[in-house]
Amino acid sequence: MSLLFKHLRIHQIFGANTDVGKTILATALVRGSAALKNDVFYLKPISTGPIQDADDEHIKRHCGALKNRVHTECLYRFHVPVSPHLAAQIAAGDESRKIVSDATFVNSITSYVRRCASRGTGPADMYVETAGGVHSPTLSGVTQVDCYRPLFLPTILIGDSRLGGISATISAYESLLLRGYVVEAVLLFRDEYYRNSDFLTPYFTERGIDVTAVDPPPPILSDASENFASTERYYERLISEDSILPVLRNLDTRHERRLAELTSMPRRSLDAFWWPFVQHDLIKGEKDVTVIDSASSDFFSVYDAHGTEGASALESQLDGSASWWTQALGHAHPTLTLAAARASGRYGHVMFPQVTHAPALQLAERLLHDGPGKGWASRVFFSDDGSTGMEVALKMALRAFSVHRCLQGADRKALGVLGLRGSYHGDTIGAMDACAEEGVYTCEWHNAKGYWFDPPTVSIQDGHPIITLPPALAAAAAPSDSTVASGSLSSVYDVPARLSTPLVEVYRTYIRNTLRSLERAGGLQLAALVLEPLVMGAGGMIFVDPLFQRVLVDVVRGRGPPPPSTDSDTPAPWRGLPVIFDEVFVGLYRLGMESTIPLLGVSPDISVHAKILTGGLVPLAATLASDSIFQAFYSTDKAEALLHGHSYTAHPLGCEVANETLRLVEKESRSEAWAAAQARWEVAPGKPGVVWSLWDPQFIQTVSRMDAVAEVMALGTVLAIKVRDSEASYVSHSAQTLLQSIKFRDTGSLASESGQFSVHFRTLGNVAYFMTSLNTAPETVRSLEDKIWTALQKSS
Amino acid sequence: MSLLFKHLRIHQIFGANTDVGKTILATALVRGSAALKNDVFYLKPISTGPIQDADDEHIKRHCGALKNRVHTECLYRFHVPVSPHLAAQIAAGDESRKIVSDATFVNSITSYVRRCASRGTGPADMYVETAGGVHSPTLSGVTQVDCYRPLFLPTILIGDSRLGGISATISAYESLLLRGYVVEAVLLFRDEYYRNSDFLTPYFTERGIDVTAVDPPPPILSDASENFASTERYYERLISEDSILPVLRNLDTRHERRLAELTSMPRRSLDAFWWPFVQHDLIKGEKDVTVIDSASSDFFSVYDAHGTEGASALESQLDGSASWWTQALGHAHPTLTLAAARASGRYGHVMFPQVTHAPALQLAERLLHDGPGKGWASRVFFSDDGSTGMEVALKMALRAFSVHRCLQGADRKALGVLGLRGSYHGDTIGAMDACAEEGVYTCEWHNAKGYWFDPPTVSIQDGHPIITLPPALAAAAAPSDSTVASGSLSSVYDVPARLSTPLVEVYRTYIRNTLRSLERAGGLQLAALVLEPLVMGAGGMIFVDPLFQRVLVDVVRGRGPPPPSTDSDTPAPWRGLPVIFDEVFVGLYRLGMESTIPLLGVSPDISVHAKILTGGLVPLAATLASDSIFQAFYSTDKAEALLHGHSYTAHPLGCEVANETLRLVEKESRSEAWAAAQARWEVAPGKPGVVWSLWDPQFIQTVSRMDAVAEVMALGTVLAIKVRDSEASYVSHSAQTLLQSIKFRDTGSLASESGQFSVHFRTLGNVAYFMTSLNTAPETVRSLEDKIWTALQKSS
Repeated sequence: MSLLFKHLRIHQIFGANTDVGKTILATALVRGSAALKNDVFYLKPISTGPIQDADDEHIKRHCGALKNRVHTECLYRFHVPVSPHLAAQIAAGDESRKIVSDATFVNSITSYVRRCASRGTGPADMYVETAGGVHSPTLSGVTQVDCYRPLFLPTILIGDSRLGGISATISAYESLLLRGYVVEAVLLFRDEYYRNSDFLTPYFTERGIDVTAVDPPPPILSDASENFASTERYYERLISEDSILPVLRNLDTRHERRLAELTSMPRRSLDAFWWPFVQHDLIKGEKDVTVIDSASSDFFSVYDAHGTEGASALESQLDGSASWWTQALGHAHPTLTLAAARASGRYGHVMFPQVTHAPALQLAERLLHDGPGKGWASRVFFSDDGSTGMEVALKMALRAFSVHRCLQGADRKALGVLGLRGSYHGDTIGAMDACAEEGVYTCEWHNAKGYWFDPPTVSIQDGHPIITLPPALAAAAAPSDSTVASGSLSSVYDVPARLSTPLVEVYRTYIRNTLRSLERAGGLQLAALVLEPLVMGAGGMIFVDPLFQRVLVDVVRGRGPPPPSTDSDTPAPWRGLPVIFDEVFVGLYRLGMESTIPLLGVSPDISVHAKILTGGLVPLAATLASDSIFQAFYSTDKAEALLHGHSYTAHPLGCEVANETLRLVEKESRSEAWAAAQARWEVAPGKPGVVWSLWDPQFIQTVSRMDAVAEVMALGTVLAIKVRDSEASYVSHSAQTLLQSIKFRDTGSLASESGQFSVHFRTLGNVAYFMTSLNTAPETVRSLEDKIWTALQKSS
Repeated sequence: MSLLFKHLRIHQIFGANTDVGKTILATALVRGSAALKNDVFYLKPISTGPIQDADDEHIKRHCGALKNRVHTECLYRFHVPVSPHLAAQIAAGDESRKIVSDATFVNSITSYVRRCASRGTGPADMYVETAGGVHSPTLSGVTQVDCYRPLFLPTILIGDSRLGGISATISAYESLLLRGYVVEAVLLFRDEYYRNSDFLTPYFTERGIDVTAVDPPPPILSDASENFASTERYYERLISEDSILPVLRNLDTRHERRLAELTSMPRRSLDAFWWPFVQHDLIKGEKDVTVIDSASSDFFSVYDAHGTEGASALESQLDGSASWWTQALGHAHPTLTLAAARASGRYGHVMFPQVTHAPALQLAERLLHDGPGKGWASRVFFSDDGSTGMEVALKMALRAFSVHRCLQGADRKALGVLGLRGSYHGDTIGAMDACAEEGVYTCEWHNAKGYWFDPPTVSIQDGHPIITLPPALAAAAAPSDSTVASGSLSSVYDVPARLSTPLVEVYRTYIRNTLRSLERAGGLQLAALVLEPLVMGAGGMIFVDPLFQRVLVDVVRGRGPPPPSTDSDTPAPWRGLPVIFDEVFVGLYRLGMESTIPLLGVSPDISVHAKILTGGLVPLAATLASDSIFQAFYSTDKAEALLHGHSYTAHPLGCEVANETLRLVEKESRSEAWAAAQARWEVAPGKPGVVWSLWDPQFIQTVSRMDAVAEVMALGTVLAIKVRDSEASYVSHSAQTLLQSIKFRDTGSLASESGQFSVHFRTLGNVAYFMTSLNTAPETVRSLEDKIWTALQKSS
């Protein structure tokens, strides 16, 4: 929604408080702009009170000699002189009108701005004057700083020159800053007694913002025409005395600098960055660089230096991969920003060994007692990201195994893991070593240690859920085992029901035989089972048959000597091999469920959580462990401790953001939007499915039947589309190519602002995937479905 | 400085603006408290204007029937009715008085509070009423929210009931929250027209804060006694109508809950956390857990459930290890909080491949062109912490070597690194593999790959800087080589001067011979030189002879075939082996210099930066690389890209905090405090030393001569004291034991608040180290020196 035009400089005007002189200074700005530009637009989105007192009327009266260049507009006018939210309530009550939603409100501003911008290409200025103070409520009751945020307009703050005005001005500035706004100028009246500008000028200068103090307006005269003349003289003096024109020149300079900066960013970024997972030689030029000027809810605001003449240089681009699977609540969520600020303001960072602080303790207890660790985990170990969290998990599991089997010396070094082919646990060497080395994803020190099964997978093909067995298993299974009879996706994920099907024995026998032949062959001692439950993400969005994972855990736990007994009130100690669940991607509602444990019907001994954990804001990981894992390190010898830690372990900012995230995602899981989506996935009227998705089941069905599509899957927020392509490797571009057209914005009618976005998405070889936040608006998901369908149609 | 007493509930009262009724509501609270508690203290730290209008006088007049229980105080009174900063300026001008510093101001409040608390142990309440709005300036000109922050008092916010008051109240709340304050109640007047409380009540309830709206005061009457009577009736009504008493009961409950929460935290933490690098079995109980309630500048505020009766349950504890070497500007620095908030508000997190955003680009360019990468680095690769940054560096170096030597298949897997014994690069397996496996720091998958030299070291012993050669080198060197003649520490670090000393040839020959014999022995192919320049931190604060590191780099670069030529305008390509500088600990002024490169006189090909990079707030790392390293990955084959990345790579919050940090640390490096410290380390009057420290050179000399001390070293912010101990291993507790007494707080006179702190410090076996921030107050460093000296004296 963000708007930026080369020929039209737009500023929003916020007041440090009510009655600080917003309209008077806006009038001065409008008159000054009229002297410099072809057109000046003044927008008062909401006006309350009698029309003759309205701000836009004042501007009209006093816009000076060049009034033909001045265009004023008010979008929502209420005649009761109260705050907009009250005025809207009164109007709604009186006239049975529905209160205007934030989206409608912002869209109507956007439409107005686009109309103005399309009037011509001559230089023009626009001022959008807000009402009251920065946090004054809008029509819906959301306060202005939040409601206007999608527009992300550069800001003029009108300071408060009265007693207490220093504080009011700085606090208003901080509220703007918490929403990321760039304040480009502070204007206020000169006051010889309180001298607020004397204090505020150096204060804001240090923060890169010019402060301009102007003479206060003359007293109001009782005679209307005298008053008019006196006011006119005042405005004329402000312009001629050159107190307003320098402000305008400064705003023009900043506008040009912003455009120049944005235009220069692709080249400079190509010169300075070494991007992750990017082959720089394949970047064709500046156009391949996405310049993100800001982000809001599910959208990036992306700069395009070469857009259509007269159109906004910023466009909305849907963050179609939830920014590498991190986003849960949308970008720049104010509640998370405030949580980050609160922890930073209270602690900064404090070191963690033998230390406790409220954010970390609250998070640990939440994860253990009321989250994914419920019923099995006893401890939380913090680290910085999924990869470090997995390194911690591996160190835990391997040590637990070593201690249990009394391994010493070289025997401790000859340990491997059991897993599934296609797994991915992060990019540090230890996490890589827990995955098979095949294909291109490797490096010099990568030394894969273990054995990985080819897993059976789940997909929807031609409208039907299918279980595809790898060749080794297919040979052993009866023909009917490859397809689930009932036909619903939920039946595939109904693990308890499927535990009595013949496929269990097929899986069990295959796993047992494989493990026996591995033992006979010698080599590495298998010391842990490492799984990404349900979906192997980075491996190519591989939806693994949950029954296979369940049987694998059961078989592994049924082998080897029983573990030493522990207290009866602690959960059962690990058996066979320690089991690690890497829930970094799949956990915390990414797949529509808080944890995969209830669905699989087995708990791990260690689990790892990251990504959504911090609501998509900052890195933080948590490794959960059962008591029997912890006991392997518990000793009077310091050297036997888990010697792992990072400088910022359990940093309070991350923990506090995580606490707020868990609160919000849990709330989201009980939302009407989720209930409605879940209803669409019911297996029978009133009977919820075992699995569900924010994606529409009909859409999934339709796409699965398209010619270009080999198979589709959706769980929770995730949609994966495998395109028909002979080359299924990491370096395949087939999915990118097929969906190319989705990257461009629809140029629909101005009336439907909300559908006007392009899509930023990622592919994994021949798999295109799309991922929403947990709170993505249903209409956005529907829009995206339409776009995907259209793109696939075009390519077919 | 934080204060918390079991028997004395203290709240600070902040106003959403001036004239919102702070004093009236404070009076109501005081009267209510008098009805419930033995004593009520009312403190107005600063009062401006005529005494008869002063807030404390109003309280005195209207404190009701139980006035003998009410005690009022004003610490700084000015008679001019203007903002405190102006009043202080006027007073200073009139009476040639020095303006009161923030520290003095806060100390005087602390002293008053302690006096009140020591009056008795019966239940009492205290209210500290601030002046004007939250950001109104104090005497020094710093605004109140920042100035009062070290006290970290729970807060009552008086809301604004007037037009615009919704915005003023929320913005004031957000400014409080940015400093971490806990707002426990919002009080405001009822206003039937604007109905602000109708909006604010659900707003704050959602944020866990109760809002109470009370009747506004009666109009002021012209007759003084009638006015008094009317005001008295108003207060009586507020109490009897039960609008104030529920607020007080709520504040009491919160006070008790806070104490109960803090008291329960050690036990709960022992049950829920798995701490890094901690052997849980060695924790003796709750008293071994440090409960950090908040932190400010260099101090933790630590809760002690078992403190002296009547004393504050919170004590100041100096963060003596700069929170695992991360702190540069003190905890909870408001500028960093605002930077974090700004980036969170603008972007949240946005994914990074082929994306650019201003905070990351600014940071990359700063590091490359005006920071540690100046003159040699061409690219920045972001990751999450020092360990991941080192994994990236290793992947870069090993690949560059492989490509250069055209290695394929198994040859690529048989690569090792050259380094120094005692090095540490992080806890992920790849970073561990770049270090020798010896001692206890290892794990199952640790597989050290390379060769590590025993390095010569620098220390101060008995007042003299000494270079200690390891046995192999000592045999080859002349006796005089082991001590530097001139006797000044700077001469040891004057690498250019020492390049012409005989020791160079001793080092060079030793290194060459060692490398030759390694080659003859076969085994791993050495593919990179990995160094922590100047100091190996985690290895035990080993100060390596810089000349040895310089000669090592020179020798390594002089070996092997020359690299392929590149463009003439790019820096020289790497030669011999790619050189990695791990500057995670030593860089960015930790040792008093931005980078170690100028001192050593050689640039690396890859460098890694973290810790101070983000000012001690959140994890972020940057790996810098030269163009010739980058070229090894540049290819038309996607598979040859550097396939490494973390979800939160280049997260805007971290990058923005880093940008602000680099700006602030650079400013600090030009501060008067640094100039004064550097002057003490001059080698001759007016001649700056090559190295210097915030620690006093005389103190270093004195300590180095103490019986209990084997050797001492100091550079920049770091002080390391090696105690005499036969057991020099990681598990040694000798340094901990020796300095045990420093952990306890001096109970000095009440007059010297600023010296009253205990010290939280870490040891590495027989080495105790202390680390300041870059901006630690000189008086704090002097205090700490006194405490260290005293502790060492006691133990000797």
